[in-house]
Amino acid sequence: MRATVLVRPKQGILDPQGEAVESALGHLGFRVADARVGKVIDLEVDAADAAEAKAQVLRMCEQLLANPLMESYEVEIVG
Amino acid sequence: MRATVLVRPKQGILDPQGEAVESALGHLGFRVADARVGKVIDLEVDAADAAEAKAQVLRMCEQLLANPLMESYEVEIVG
Repeated sequence: MRATVLVRPKQGILDPQGEAVESALGHLGFRVADARVGKVIDLEVDAADAAEAKAQVLRMCEQLLANPLMESYEVEIVG
Repeated sequence: MRATVLVRPKQGILDPQGEAVESALGHLGFRVADARVGKVIDLEVDAADAAEAKAQVLRMCEQLLANPLMESYEVEIVG
């Protein structure tokens, strides 16, 4: 099954990459605020159904994909 | 308006970060394939409506957020 994981810096955590993006967009003439940069991870999981796939991917997030102190994550099973 | 941009390496483009994630997950005992890592960018856009916001963010993608040679992008206006 195909899964998509979104990993984002938590609110209140400094995000230098987001600040750089915001500043660069401002220099290009765009009016933006509060830019935050995270990761999107797409992967193929070996699972019998969507529920099992989601449970597996949540464990991957806890063990590797996200740093729970600084990042939040969201898992979507695409099918 | 709040926008979310997903920037992913195009098919056929080498993705060393995805390969590293896939290999590390394999070492942890997960059976995964075809892992790809991209970016998620959340930002607040100054626009009158969702259509104008989307047009602006698409221009940001072309000018800064994505490398059109190597990356594809998707824009969602959250509201």
